[in-house]
Amino acid sequence: MTQQSVPSSAVRADGRAPDQLRPISITRGWSSQAEGSALIEFGNTRVLCTASFTEGVPRWLKGEGRGWVTAEYAMLPRATNTRSDRESVKGKVGGRTHEISRLIGRSLRSIIDTKALGENTIVLDCDVLQADGGTRTAAITGAYVALAESIRWARGKKIVKANAQVLKDTVAAVSVGIIDGVPMLDLPYVEDVRAETDMNVVVTGSGQFVEVQGTAEGAPFDRDELDALLDLALAGTTELSRIQRETLAEPA
Amino acid sequence: MTQQSVPSSAVRADGRAPDQLRPISITRGWSSQAEGSALIEFGNTRVLCTASFTEGVPRWLKGEGRGWVTAEYAMLPRATNTRSDRESVKGKVGGRTHEISRLIGRSLRSIIDTKALGENTIVLDCDVLQADGGTRTAAITGAYVALAESIRWARGKKIVKANAQVLKDTVAAVSVGIIDGVPMLDLPYVEDVRAETDMNVVVTGSGQFVEVQGTAEGAPFDRDELDALLDLALAGTTELSRIQRETLAEPA
Amino acid sequence: MTQQSVPSSAVRADGRAPDQLRPISITRGWSSQAEGSALIEFGNTRVLCTASFTEGVPRWLKGEGRGWVTAEYAMLPRATNTRSDRESVKGKVGGRTHEISRLIGRSLRSIIDTKALGENTIVLDCDVLQADGGTRTAAITGAYVALAESIRWARGKKIVKANAQVLKDTVAAVSVGIIDGVPMLDLPYVEDVRAETDMNVVVTGSGQFVEVQGTAEGAPFDRDELDALLDLALAGTTELSRIQRETLAEPA
Amino acid sequence: MTQQSVPSSAVRADGRAPDQLRPISITRGWSSQAEGSALIEFGNTRVLCTASFTEGVPRWLKGEGRGWVTAEYAMLPRATNTRSDRESVKGKVGGRTHEISRLIGRSLRSIIDTKALGENTIVLDCDVLQADGGTRTAAITGAYVALAESIRWARGKKIVKANAQVLKDTVAAVSVGIIDGVPMLDLPYVEDVRAETDMNVVVTGSGQFVEVQGTAEGAPFDRDELDALLDLALAGTTELSRIQRETLAEPA
Amino acid sequence: MTQQSVPSSAVRADGRAPDQLRPISITRGWSSQAEGSALIEFGNTRVLCTASFTEGVPRWLKGEGRGWVTAEYAMLPRATNTRSDRESVKGKVGGRTHEISRLIGRSLRSIIDTKALGENTIVLDCDVLQADGGTRTAAITGAYVALAESIRWARGKKIVKANAQVLKDTVAAVSVGIIDGVPMLDLPYVEDVRAETDMNVVVTGSGQFVEVQGTAEGAPFDRDELDALLDLALAGTTELSRIQRETLAEPA
Amino acid sequence: MTQQSVPSSAVRADGRAPDQLRPISITRGWSSQAEGSALIEFGNTRVLCTASFTEGVPRWLKGEGRGWVTAEYAMLPRATNTRSDRESVKGKVGGRTHEISRLIGRSLRSIIDTKALGENTIVLDCDVLQADGGTRTAAITGAYVALAESIRWARGKKIVKANAQVLKDTVAAVSVGIIDGVPMLDLPYVEDVRAETDMNVVVTGSGQFVEVQGTAEGAPFDRDELDALLDLALAGTTELSRIQRETLAEPA
Repeated sequence: MTQQSVPSSAVRADGRAPDQLRPISITRGWSSQAEGSALIEFGNTRVLCTASFTEGVPRWLKGEGRGWVTAEYAMLPRATNTRSDRESVKGKVGGRTHEISRLIGRSLRSIIDTKALGENTIVLDCDVLQADGGTRTAAITGAYVALAESIRWARGKKIVKANAQVLKDTVAAVSVGIIDGVPMLDLPYVEDVRAETDMNVVVTGSGQFVEVQGTAEGAPFDRDELDALLDLALAGTTELSRIQRETLAEPA
Repeated sequence: MTQQSVPSSAVRADGRAPDQLRPISITRGWSSQAEGSALIEFGNTRVLCTASFTEGVPRWLKGEGRGWVTAEYAMLPRATNTRSDRESVKGKVGGRTHEISRLIGRSLRSIIDTKALGENTIVLDCDVLQADGGTRTAAITGAYVALAESIRWARGKKIVKANAQVLKDTVAAVSVGIIDGVPMLDLPYVEDVRAETDMNVVVTGSGQFVEVQGTAEGAPFDRDELDALLDLALAGTTELSRIQRETLAEPA
Repeated sequence: MTQQSVPSSAVRADGRAPDQLRPISITRGWSSQAEGSALIEFGNTRVLCTASFTEGVPRWLKGEGRGWVTAEYAMLPRATNTRSDRESVKGKVGGRTHEISRLIGRSLRSIIDTKALGENTIVLDCDVLQADGGTRTAAITGAYVALAESIRWARGKKIVKANAQVLKDTVAAVSVGIIDGVPMLDLPYVEDVRAETDMNVVVTGSGQFVEVQGTAEGAPFDRDELDALLDLALAGTTELSRIQRETLAEPA
Repeated sequence: MTQQSVPSSAVRADGRAPDQLRPISITRGWSSQAEGSALIEFGNTRVLCTASFTEGVPRWLKGEGRGWVTAEYAMLPRATNTRSDRESVKGKVGGRTHEISRLIGRSLRSIIDTKALGENTIVLDCDVLQADGGTRTAAITGAYVALAESIRWARGKKIVKANAQVLKDTVAAVSVGIIDGVPMLDLPYVEDVRAETDMNVVVTGSGQFVEVQGTAEGAPFDRDELDALLDLALAGTTELSRIQRETLAEPA
Repeated sequence: MTQQSVPSSAVRADGRAPDQLRPISITRGWSSQAEGSALIEFGNTRVLCTASFTEGVPRWLKGEGRGWVTAEYAMLPRATNTRSDRESVKGKVGGRTHEISRLIGRSLRSIIDTKALGENTIVLDCDVLQADGGTRTAAITGAYVALAESIRWARGKKIVKANAQVLKDTVAAVSVGIIDGVPMLDLPYVEDVRAETDMNVVVTGSGQFVEVQGTAEGAPFDRDELDALLDLALAGTTELSRIQRETLAEPA
Repeated sequence: MTQQSVPSSAVRADGRAPDQLRPISITRGWSSQAEGSALIEFGNTRVLCTASFTEGVPRWLKGEGRGWVTAEYAMLPRATNTRSDRESVKGKVGGRTHEISRLIGRSLRSIIDTKALGENTIVLDCDVLQADGGTRTAAITGAYVALAESIRWARGKKIVKANAQVLKDTVAAVSVGIIDGVPMLDLPYVEDVRAETDMNVVVTGSGQFVEVQGTAEGAPFDRDELDALLDLALAGTTELSRIQRETLAEPA
């Protein structure tokens, strides 16, 4: 387990500086069933990420010599402060769930060399056990660790070649937002609901953008605000990438 | 009907310059049943937008003195080059459809003063009759016209007060992307599938951002590329805002 | 585009004689994506019909040397005077939709020689963009034009043999009803809701019946009334068949 | 129990004349749970019809002083020669089921005076226990008996006034078709699949039409054939109406 | 048809002794469509059981030389005293239905030698036509008769070898419960709702347990009560096994 | 956190004696969002149980002065050795899930005094994070702890009266089975699949039965085997009840 806490010198409800992450914890190998897994915590947000590695690919991809990576996100009914109905009971997956699952899948595919993966499939399941803002960015950051662990597993099993560079880079994500005019990093729920602008940014370990999703919740935002948010996000993902590397450097 | 064609001096498959929109056409009042409607065309992309204005709000909003604006996006099965199964027949709305419906709704709510709207609901239906790239941005741009027309209708019926400023601004959207390293405006389908990076940008008439959604389809993108795409998008939405204003200035 | 208006000398809300059709318009090739298409208008009723021609047949028909023709009918949520919920959102196709889709499919199959078609499938999508009564009969009449156009396309592509007589006849449909004791042709919505008896009749170009669906909405009807309605319907479909032929005789 | 067999002098697979019904049996009160019920048999076709009478009407009809009658049709999975999947397991009601349920409901409403019924609801459930052609017409004919019994029950309970004429007439239905050019009455499955034209006719006890649904399965039909089929149907429903009256005349 | 009534000397609402079954009736071959069938009655509870025998097994079992037996239970909407909505209309199978279907399937598989059955599938459909308590136990008892009949049919058709011992034993089931402190056999609905403890017991013809499902509805139960209920159930299933044997001994 | 390990002196794959539980661990208050929660582990089986306490009851229970307790069970897709599809994605809850949810709900209601609870609702969510046999019995045992904690919370908030005896007893559950003829306690997955007979037993703290569910997976079982299994189960639940009491005795 790797636990990190960035020093703080400022004024948010939880005492953090505007440019400071919440305490981040990644427990690698939390599940003994999956080929890769990580329990990731951004403060009180707690997401269990598992990677299921299986040989073969979906029918539409057969014979092309490439692998497939996809993701599913979901929330336990009582992850939040009040209970939500289960999507299985409602009989359909909601729009928000779909949207986040697609985002996680795209983010991880951006750093995968599907040729090097070969005709294998990796499914990332990101289940939010406890939610306090930033669940999708925690999910992406944790899913990367589970993904990397499952590729090591496959390499150990000789399913993936020893010298195949399946991972082209690392990937991490963080939320940023403007609250009372101040750009802030890594919003917990109480800040998220008050943010005028809310942005989720997915960045590779080498500092390039994979996704930039900014939304004006209250008032439209201008170019300067956009730039300030991007600066903050890049600083946050640099830190998260470092924690990911350390976590994966530890013996399993 | 307002039809616009930006002059071109360059080299895309359809002869446009990288910073040029496709021919844009907006037919206001295409439907005689809805309170507001517009058939919008971005080149071969053709979207029918209707605004259904009804008195009253959903239960969860009752008694707060505020209105509600929401949107639903869908595609006819043969809008595209090969036929897709109907979502009604499959029994569920797909993730992409959900995601776009939510985007359109958020975009329009960003320029609405829900207090001025009063306890009324406007539902925007955006049905893609023919698809050739940029359907979501055409939908937002056309839905704004239908929305504005429905508010005029409500004002004529005295459902909305004569002096209520329901619309705080106008809103339009455009897609941009990087193809073979060149940032380009308003991608048709053939360009969209080749883009390394794809971005949808929603901008108010006064030039502020409502949504910025950039995705690395092929390779991650850097800060300079992001900036070039935003410049292009702002030029495009400025032109679209002008066309919207002209369309709405014409007698019905 | 072919637009027809039958002269009138009588007393309905819209000034038509009891035995007169509404203005009929058929725009062939409205969609550039489908192998065949027609936008058909019966007065304010407006239906987009597309024919999707694909090689191969459903599994249950394989190897029999015969083709397959099927249809799906749907209505946009705001085709009507008040908005209806989308069937995709409700998660199921309603009984009325099912019933009409099946009727359209049977009607078109009645004039197709499936042996001559070969192992190919044609799906007709009939989407009501605006509804003012008679949507199912407009759909059948327009779908025939889209179907014929798609067969020409297939002949051009040599998918269907040059001399194959795939179409055994033409087919058109019209609604008739008894209002205040008077049999009337081609009912718009305001008449449809008042009709005591309502009948949809599908007839081939050579004047034979494919479907006769008469329903007593208010009071049961006797044999004389049934006969008067059938006379009216045959006159109407004769006129519609003529318009179909003229439309298809024009250069594409 | 009333069991009837029309004498025969002819040449069908089961020895019947072309204008002869199969043996008809109606067991009134087969269910001890429902307010009205009938097990009806047309040869091997066996349908259990129950009428559920409840006070009150659906919300959309409240306060209008009128009642509501509706119907649901379904088939047991092994009613037919090979097993079909259950619609409950498939998670949706098929098009054919919907269509027939709607037909039964309309047929029964045609002979009900909803004002005389008062604000009460009757649901007719028609479950096919064994199917051998003509299930929808048997269902209508049996449902009438269950309906009439439930109204007697309601009169006995003083829920419906003693002198209220809730039933304006009786109603029965039969199938007819053309096989090898010969019009025939009441088709069992083996005839039904061979019929060129298939028609279901719903007729009141006083001999007026409620529904006429004729479909060309093989070849279109002309006016003379239509007339011959209607003659046959009227003779059949006259006989069925007589059996219904006798069944209802017996002590419960 | 075999009808049995155990003599009684006691005090229940219907006059039975605590250890007495309701009148049991099994009509073998009630359906002429299925390979095996039985209409079983436990007093007013009436369940139609059909066995559909088909060659071949589900994909996951192919090539193992073993057969498959499964079951589906359902209730007609008006089997009970008040009407329930159809599961097909609700679009999903309820928990209770699922649970009982699984119980019936397991019970019948317990006495089947799937090797001797060969690669064949038997589906048991148990549809409750009228419900008065004990529907699941009646369904198991009747399904056994339908199952046995379908195996005879298959033996007649040489699909199953003449000397194959497909059935290892017979199986029957009964409900027992404690009412006002008194253990009682075969509860009708009025007793079932009052029972403090409710138990369904499935027993082979040779007197061994297949399923024991005891539930404290009101108060937890102790070891002595459990023992008394098991004694009662064993006596009841012994009687039911005898009736099954007699029914199957009769000529079809 | 309370962790318990029963000493062992025998011969199972994991070294346990036939009558020995796996190491049991209950972490009370694992979730900071729910009114009550427990992460329970039976060896590698790990279930997160949360209790959501809300004021008010479902509509059908209003005004009766009684509360309601219900439960939902689910499994994460990769809780097991191979990944299962999510029930939300499949669009329906499976039979096994339904069955277990109902079992947990009944078990907890058996020890609740709903009058003392007042018009309040407690929903228990039991989500299996990792599965290695006995998930339903672990869920019941853990749900009791979450339930008890939520009642303390409600008492602290004065929603439940200080002296109200809401809990009449404690409740715990364990699985037992016969493997190679030997009755064994608390089966992990490898033993569960080999068991000839499998039984889940739910017992109160005072040693009375709430549920007894025995199933012959391979061969039917006799009375002696049933008795041996019940003895084993009672010993196991006595131990589990002790651990529950100790867990709840610790300060939160």
